[in-house]
Amino acid sequence: MAMNIAVAQSGGPTCAINASLVGVIREALANEEIGTVFGSPNGIEGFIKDRLVNLNERMPDEETLELVRRTPSAVLGSCRYKLPDHTENDHMYRQVAECLKKRQIGALFYIGGNDSMDTVMKLDRYFKETGLPIRMIGIPKTIDNDLCHTDHTPGFGSAAKYVTTTLQEIARDSMAYSVRSVTIVEIMGRNAGWLTASSSLLHANGEEAPHLTYLPETPFLVEKFLDDIRRVQETHRSVIVAVSEGIEIPEEAVGTNYRSGAKDIFGHRYLSGVGKCLERIVSREIGCKVRSIELNVMQRCASHIASLTDLEEAEGIGAAAVKAALNGETGKMMTFVRQDDPYKITFGAVDAGEVANHEKKFPIEWINPERNGVLPAAIDYFMPLISGECYPIMKNGLPTHFKL
Amino acid sequence: MAMNIAVAQSGGPTCAINASLVGVIREALANEEIGTVFGSPNGIEGFIKDRLVNLNERMPDEETLELVRRTPSAVLGSCRYKLPDHTENDHMYRQVAECLKKRQIGALFYIGGNDSMDTVMKLDRYFKETGLPIRMIGIPKTIDNDLCHTDHTPGFGSAAKYVTTTLQEIARDSMAYSVRSVTIVEIMGRNAGWLTASSSLLHANGEEAPHLTYLPETPFLVEKFLDDIRRVQETHRSVIVAVSEGIEIPEEAVGTNYRSGAKDIFGHRYLSGVGKCLERIVSREIGCKVRSIELNVMQRCASHIASLTDLEEAEGIGAAAVKAALNGETGKMMTFVRQDDPYKITFGAVDAGEVANHEKKFPIEWINPERNGVLPAAIDYFMPLISGECYPIMKNGLPTHFKL
Repeated sequence: MAMNIAVAQSGGPTCAINASLVGVIREALANEEIGTVFGSPNGIEGFIKDRLVNLNERMPDEETLELVRRTPSAVLGSCRYKLPDHTENDHMYRQVAECLKKRQIGALFYIGGNDSMDTVMKLDRYFKETGLPIRMIGIPKTIDNDLCHTDHTPGFGSAAKYVTTTLQEIARDSMAYSVRSVTIVEIMGRNAGWLTASSSLLHANGEEAPHLTYLPETPFLVEKFLDDIRRVQETHRSVIVAVSEGIEIPEEAVGTNYRSGAKDIFGHRYLSGVGKCLERIVSREIGCKVRSIELNVMQRCASHIASLTDLEEAEGIGAAAVKAALNGETGKMMTFVRQDDPYKITFGAVDAGEVANHEKKFPIEWINPERNGVLPAAIDYFMPLISGECYPIMKNGLPTHFKL
Repeated sequence: MAMNIAVAQSGGPTCAINASLVGVIREALANEEIGTVFGSPNGIEGFIKDRLVNLNERMPDEETLELVRRTPSAVLGSCRYKLPDHTENDHMYRQVAECLKKRQIGALFYIGGNDSMDTVMKLDRYFKETGLPIRMIGIPKTIDNDLCHTDHTPGFGSAAKYVTTTLQEIARDSMAYSVRSVTIVEIMGRNAGWLTASSSLLHANGEEAPHLTYLPETPFLVEKFLDDIRRVQETHRSVIVAVSEGIEIPEEAVGTNYRSGAKDIFGHRYLSGVGKCLERIVSREIGCKVRSIELNVMQRCASHIASLTDLEEAEGIGAAAVKAALNGETGKMMTFVRQDDPYKITFGAVDAGEVANHEKKFPIEWINPERNGVLPAAIDYFMPLISGECYPIMKNGLPTHFKL
């Protein structure tokens, strides 16, 4: 008898999370052992509320699947939800189990980041301890590239391609003027500098920008930062700085509380990030034209400039997850195993518990001794991940998106 | 004997300003009457400093011209420079005339916005009054679409395509979550709402976002804005608001000075725009999850999602400018003359003085009675301008740009 399967998406959106979903569906369609593919709206919430949708019905043909594959964000909807330990409170676990049993679901695929792998680990443990024959597989995704035990994460390559493409365009814009200027580009990655570091890919194409790069992996020193800018200004009219949103700027350097989360004298929160903060410091201390640009959520949803490699790998790892479940694996997160010269990715698996709640930082040995740039080894690592384009399906001059 | 010509770029960068440059060069190459094409770095500054470059040498083949055409911003460099009246001070005029005479330049093409048309008008007047046989033609460009006497402006279509594409992706991102949220997208256009209004093109593809649109052409009322959001929230979990950077928010509504240009109690300028300001108001008055996104300079330089129609028209109007000069026209700005059903653009010319220092606002009759959205007539106007794609020439997974 065929078993049914279920899939859900969780955590911050990316451009590749739907490609992994399509990978699961296409691999399921190719296997006679698998019956219906159910989708859970908003991650674990859909199971808890018993609101699964039949994805074979909602995505009935190749044309629809291809549209899903090229749609950014999570078509099933996402959630940010931390399950309690089931030995303390198993209420929601029983709801999830009930929802799955009712539909003869034998395998559950959870696409997400390190918080989601915590859910994978906990559900797998619960299923095992209660004797439920449900295989539980995690499929990684995050633009932050901060998951352990995998060479990189689906979603990162497209985010890096967007960030790099955009930073280069910003550089052209800044360099059009004959006045001295500093442009600070704030890039996502609260604890890990991968995405910010990836902007140095531009150097491989002979671009000088970014002239300076600051990552959260090393301490940020305001005086050093100002000296760095002054030094670059000796030879460059227009200075482009790539800075991670996660760097820590000492409060005394800012003058007034200007950081996210800080409050003004009226008790209102200031809403600005490090970019605006550094803009203010440069304006005050150097006095030239300065502007900051926050690339914001576009970093995780700009599918119109997605990396083909990223989408293909994301789909591949979704398919690999289904194969792993059919082979009896459970409690695992799928991984990318890398081979270079030529670049090639194969798929592996690791205990979800070894990924859950851990972070992989950008390697210190790939940061230059000055702590304001990245070394060629990093460029070699990043390069294949942004390769190739997968442009949107257009209608009326605009991308089309799938909506559930 | 062949005459030489010169071309310069001025004002804010766009994705199409280089396509107009290429239009001038290609048309010059096709005409035996024209010898060398000189480029002036940084607008009028290049003439004043006598630093022209030979563009036939710097852009020697079709491959290079095609790369220039797809490069954002101004490859010759831009300037923001207002010439004095020559009857009061003709020093710079004489420098420009000297530079042109020395190189037997018989026609000068100036690509820019309404400030640049002021330069076109003044130089033309000076050439005429001093008996210099130099034809002076303005080629329009601006993402703001605020030039009079032309159906639209080169550069606007690509900016609209970027804004609309990005707003749709932001909508996907916001809608992934099951929590109630308001997302405010701040769009360029200090005095005219064209670009903000263009985001409603998404409605033609069945997208509900933007749910609310606020333009500088009508007064902005904070209480009305909050009521609008509350009303949309009755039926939509995720509300997307498109707002022009140019709307005026009454200071008393903000609580503390939070606008660009305002100063805090320490005398430091606040650097935030209307998006952050409205984010703060919504957070305080409605209390749901809210974020603001500034599309920033990417609106004028994101050539990776340029409109093919825009680039073709921008190149066409550059070529038309050369033809006009050869026909003896001078002191004119070239214009787009539109025909609908089917959409077709031909080229006209108008006295530069009639464009200089004027602004064309978004028509009030295309704004809905509620003053929070645009009407279908506007969509019909915008639609052809974003049609078609012209993707970048890629290397190592990244766009390549021409650098002078």
